[in-house]
Amino acid sequence: MLLPIALLVLVAQAQAAEPFVGFSPEAALKQREIEARFDAALDPNDQRAWMKEMTAAPNHVSSPHNKANAEAILAQFQSWGWDAHIETFQVLYPTPVEVQVEMVAPTQATAHLRENNFTEGPDAAVLKDALPAYNVFSGDGDVTADVVYVNYGMPDDYKELERRGIDVRGKVVLARYGGGWRGLKPKLAAEHGAVACLIYSDPRDDGYFVGNSYPNDANRPLDGLQRGSVNDITLYSGDPLTPGAGAVKSAKRLAIKDVKTLPRIPVLPIAYRDAQPMLEALTGPVAPPGWRGALPFTYHIGPGPTKVHVKVQSEWSLKDVHNVIAMMPGSEAPDEWVIRGNHHDAWVMGAHDPFSGHGAMMAEAKAIGALVKQGLHPHRTIVYASWDAEEPGLLGSVEWVETHADELKQKAVVYINSDTNGRGLLNVDGTQALQRMVNEVAEAVKDPQTNASVGERKRAKQRADGYARRAAGIAGTTADRAAERIITVRPMGSGSDYTPFAQHLGIAALDLGFSGENDLGGVYHSSYDTYDTFTKFGDPDFKYGIALAQVAGRAILRTANAERLPFAFGDQADGIGRYLDEVKRLTDARRALAEDLGQLLDDKAFELAADPLRQVGPPQRDDHVPYINLSPLENAVARLRRAGAAFDRAIAGTTLVPGQTAMMNVLLKDAEQLLTDTRGLPNRSWYTHMIFAPGLFAGYGAKTLPGLREAIEEHQYADADKYAVIIAARVEAYAERLERATAVATATKPGN
Amino acid sequence: MLLPIALLVLVAQAQAAEPFVGFSPEAALKQREIEARFDAALDPNDQRAWMKEMTAAPNHVSSPHNKANAEAILAQFQSWGWDAHIETFQVLYPTPVEVQVEMVAPTQATAHLRENNFTEGPDAAVLKDALPAYNVFSGDGDVTADVVYVNYGMPDDYKELERRGIDVRGKVVLARYGGGWRGLKPKLAAEHGAVACLIYSDPRDDGYFVGNSYPNDANRPLDGLQRGSVNDITLYSGDPLTPGAGAVKSAKRLAIKDVKTLPRIPVLPIAYRDAQPMLEALTGPVAPPGWRGALPFTYHIGPGPTKVHVKVQSEWSLKDVHNVIAMMPGSEAPDEWVIRGNHHDAWVMGAHDPFSGHGAMMAEAKAIGALVKQGLHPHRTIVYASWDAEEPGLLGSVEWVETHADELKQKAVVYINSDTNGRGLLNVDGTQALQRMVNEVAEAVKDPQTNASVGERKRAKQRADGYARRAAGIAGTTADRAAERIITVRPMGSGSDYTPFAQHLGIAALDLGFSGENDLGGVYHSSYDTYDTFTKFGDPDFKYGIALAQVAGRAILRTANAERLPFAFGDQADGIGRYLDEVKRLTDARRALAEDLGQLLDDKAFELAADPLRQVGPPQRDDHVPYINLSPLENAVARLRRAGAAFDRAIAGTTLVPGQTAMMNVLLKDAEQLLTDTRGLPNRSWYTHMIFAPGLFAGYGAKTLPGLREAIEEHQYADADKYAVIIAARVEAYAERLERATAVATATKPGN
Repeated sequence: MLLPIALLVLVAQAQAAEPFVGFSPEAALKQREIEARFDAALDPNDQRAWMKEMTAAPNHVSSPHNKANAEAILAQFQSWGWDAHIETFQVLYPTPVEVQVEMVAPTQATAHLRENNFTEGPDAAVLKDALPAYNVFSGDGDVTADVVYVNYGMPDDYKELERRGIDVRGKVVLARYGGGWRGLKPKLAAEHGAVACLIYSDPRDDGYFVGNSYPNDANRPLDGLQRGSVNDITLYSGDPLTPGAGAVKSAKRLAIKDVKTLPRIPVLPIAYRDAQPMLEALTGPVAPPGWRGALPFTYHIGPGPTKVHVKVQSEWSLKDVHNVIAMMPGSEAPDEWVIRGNHHDAWVMGAHDPFSGHGAMMAEAKAIGALVKQGLHPHRTIVYASWDAEEPGLLGSVEWVETHADELKQKAVVYINSDTNGRGLLNVDGTQALQRMVNEVAEAVKDPQTNASVGERKRAKQRADGYARRAAGIAGTTADRAAERIITVRPMGSGSDYTPFAQHLGIAALDLGFSGENDLGGVYHSSYDTYDTFTKFGDPDFKYGIALAQVAGRAILRTANAERLPFAFGDQADGIGRYLDEVKRLTDARRALAEDLGQLLDDKAFELAADPLRQVGPPQRDDHVPYINLSPLENAVARLRRAGAAFDRAIAGTTLVPGQTAMMNVLLKDAEQLLTDTRGLPNRSWYTHMIFAPGLFAGYGAKTLPGLREAIEEHQYADADKYAVIIAARVEAYAERLERATAVATATKPGN
Repeated sequence: MLLPIALLVLVAQAQAAEPFVGFSPEAALKQREIEARFDAALDPNDQRAWMKEMTAAPNHVSSPHNKANAEAILAQFQSWGWDAHIETFQVLYPTPVEVQVEMVAPTQATAHLRENNFTEGPDAAVLKDALPAYNVFSGDGDVTADVVYVNYGMPDDYKELERRGIDVRGKVVLARYGGGWRGLKPKLAAEHGAVACLIYSDPRDDGYFVGNSYPNDANRPLDGLQRGSVNDITLYSGDPLTPGAGAVKSAKRLAIKDVKTLPRIPVLPIAYRDAQPMLEALTGPVAPPGWRGALPFTYHIGPGPTKVHVKVQSEWSLKDVHNVIAMMPGSEAPDEWVIRGNHHDAWVMGAHDPFSGHGAMMAEAKAIGALVKQGLHPHRTIVYASWDAEEPGLLGSVEWVETHADELKQKAVVYINSDTNGRGLLNVDGTQALQRMVNEVAEAVKDPQTNASVGERKRAKQRADGYARRAAGIAGTTADRAAERIITVRPMGSGSDYTPFAQHLGIAALDLGFSGENDLGGVYHSSYDTYDTFTKFGDPDFKYGIALAQVAGRAILRTANAERLPFAFGDQADGIGRYLDEVKRLTDARRALAEDLGQLLDDKAFELAADPLRQVGPPQRDDHVPYINLSPLENAVARLRRAGAAFDRAIAGTTLVPGQTAMMNVLLKDAEQLLTDTRGLPNRSWYTHMIFAPGLFAGYGAKTLPGLREAIEEHQYADADKYAVIIAARVEAYAERLERATAVATATKPGN
């Protein structure tokens, strides 16, 4: 297999001095030996046994088996030689006392809020301790009202309703899962005046339309339910009562009524077998084409005559959550921490989510323990964390990070996360300062299904997908094509435990996982996410569990052992430059479109064009989109491009003396934090990272340069000008740090 | 309502000398008076009564009621003062003796080949004389074999099958309607070795997914069947036994076995109620996303275990077809014929198809008869034709055109067609030499549902649609945006009776109809296409029947009465120029894609990218796409642009003397024929028009510059170079004719 040219150049550059980033040739030789021993200690049967044991009963927060898992994980870490303990927090975690959904008109039916395996088959015995399906943090309430179908319940869907003159005030909205983060559905429903929100799984999105249903494959069956959290994690994550502070016993807590992240209306998930009669009975306009799912009838919007009764009553006490924290002290830089985490709580048993990733993490910890027993201590301190209460909103990790924020800002150099894992391709989100290391690691690990490396396979997939897009007539930019030939570290949204590290504190972070060849999307957050399902349809031989351990383990060990911290900055500069280009294109496109729209509205073109018998009103007039002063940011990005290139040139072709390395590490270890601004993003100061954040209206999806981009998207143009300046200042500070690091390196560069 | 600037300029230019194209100010005044009287003679109750009478029984070719209709139409024309007769031809028209579809494994079921109204409700009595659903010209045969689902059964679908290693040899293919012309489905199936072809109507395409089903609306119900012809009209249209010659009694006929346009395998349409168990039982790979319809299960490809028995046995004798031809002699230029046509045969009763358009045509004929009785004779001869046997492949019109080809080439100046008609927007296909007239006529007719003109409403719709595309991120060219502000006459494909005029002889032609706001797509070619359906869901008050009569009647009367024939050529030059630009972009895009693909194949990127458990092979390597010598065509188009602009300038701002007008009309009346080449298109010499044709793999869909474009699409690059020269010669000849006409006009232009 030939390496693509771009990568050859990159590798050749680095090889001059560094066989891989951060390592001298001698250190790299030793590191390769360590990694070979690390690999030898990985056994898929370990992961199989752990998954089997840990998924033997329901693992929701505060369940007995979840606590037992934490204790078992603790014991394992200790047995492998780690200095481990359980760190407990007290968080708000409501559990359902009564949940009920009934269709009361035009026919009567009671929704099942439990899958069939609660009562049938081998899982029934252990599922008697499981909770009914619910959306944690749903508002309490008891309402009966007509139903309106709102598609995915996203902002554009409400615009479509408005164009049809349909109001959801006083109604129950029925939304389908997908199209955006579930927590936005009740939030937007409540903002539009709905009194309750039901979320169902349409077979179009994760059921029979996609592929064979469970138990023939892992697509959602008619009784499958998607549980999940609906508190507004785009404002802040973690315990709703203690934003910004650790939820220790003595913490000052908000009153529940003062919490801004909690939905104000009841919200419950239902299966399509129960949504089907509700949808089929709706009248009113035919739903727009993009709203139609795979159920066998014409989708209508309503309102009514379908009427439902929805009741949610929860028990709102504090619950204990148990993080397992394990440390392996560094031999040379004990105060530089390389942190690795994966959660262990689940919605029900949780084979895929979280134990597919958690097993890989434990395998790494066991292998690192074995290395240490062989005398191969890490240079830096390694911290492994098994988080509790990720599912209800990253509660375990956030409270730990908030509690230890000062120490982490001092000591944490990298956080590496995983969550679900399975067959397929390596996907990486995070800081592009680590992109070079990621690419090097991906070259070093074999894909379990082919003779290629993980990196080769990923690049082949990116190129094949790019070709398919171009064959379909979707042109990409030159930068898009170049990006196909490298593993691009993608910006972080949210939805797993990297968020407090990366986006609250500004720790350089990565989120790693394999996926794409059967992601068990149809058993996601359901009682069918079991060991049997995973070993039939997910990663039957835990080969990708091994691959993830090899990738994440290498990333951890290289970061822990590198002489110079393994950052490179040309990729980071390119990435931020691309984000800025996107914002510019976005602004120009919106401006042209707004003008276009204005003219059409002036000419009453939409009224004339509309079918008078199927009246759809015109789109809302867009504000005039002003020109934003992006020059501060353009200048900052230009400086960063120069500084990143200079840094990468400086570390290529030279060998540093130890004193230089130490000086550089001081400058590099917290450089990512310079990209944060303590004022945070508009109206959500908890999110301080200026390069990426979960989108306000994208939920788990990432927005880059969010202070600027969302200001434009939401017509807050004053914020746009303001954040262009704020982001520019952070990029300048970051570039200045790189310039200083480069100066250290070039001070003695041969020939300078 | 303000006119857009582009149109104001255009109208202003023309008004200098011509209030509308071809008319002096004095003649235009008189013409306006004629059109006002014409409008006054139109009565929607006529159209209602004609539709009710003509749809009272099945109207397939050779049925008694179809013949009775022809006689009734003849009598009407005669009563209105037309010189009318029935002209009969003897054509091959097979009728079913035995048609049968049975699922024989894994379960047994017999397909219904009749809709439920054959046996239930008020239509049952007359439907006892209807034929069962069939695809006319199906091969005879009796086969039993495993089923393979082939999506739409188009060329790309067979490529997908090949990538999955699935062979249809010896199998029955099950294709869904849509995605391309039905006749291609059995043709491609047979070419790939299938032994039979079933075509079903998926509710995704014209059933409940689209909107409420019949009888709640006009989308296809579970028992709805789409009949239709499957002979290969892309090679030639008309009677399969007499290509190029009129099927008169004495005609020399091919033996059936020598006919190249007939499918070699049995093919039948089925309803989704019968396709559903066949599809649901299929195993094999899950169908690709784009193949999945709206039935409530996972679509698989097969082959098997579904096995079906298919039998077709037809009676292959010659049948009489009866065209009604009515003439109104011209007072000044009796040897210049303006022809108008619409067919009267139907698959079953045929309210929408064909009587919605046919009624408008009759209304025009009645009104013209009334004008003549008032002494307002047309200057040119007007011919109205009610065609038989359009449904089995334009048999009535083609045989008439072939019989009278020499006379038509001498005398026919314009042919104007209609077929189905309903609520919505005016759509016009044809020669762009008539685009200016079309726009003028559309300004003069009121849209029945708004206060706007038909033209204003159409332009508003084009602009609103363009905005929606741009809002979805699909950028168009500047030419696309300009085109939104004018009614663009679109290139002709096929599927109605304009084909022999426009594409076989090169008569300037238009196809007119209103559509878009409930096209009754789900009753198309079914026994539910009834008077009741049409008056409930189609055009309840025949308002658009009136509007069509107003548009088509004006086009006929203006062409008949214009002093100078109402052509303008800047639009024609722009149109051909756009087609050439498209071909250039197509070629460049294919070349880039072929190179891209070659590299990916060399690198084995597709193998690496594919999921090993769901193996899909790589796409087929594309030939290297050579550079085509387009310069002859580019030079010809440049000359045409100059010539078209010069002509349009010459006729603006001047008044011709009668001798000049006569000289110009001699040059203009057959100019369109200069765009034909008697050698015809590659492997289909019957199609002689070099600017547009039905696509070889598009069926009813148009291909522009077809000799060139299809050569590139089908990798016949030698043909591409050859046809670039052939087309260039025709465009040069056409431009030269315009230059001569311009010279006539400018000879006495004031100030010249």
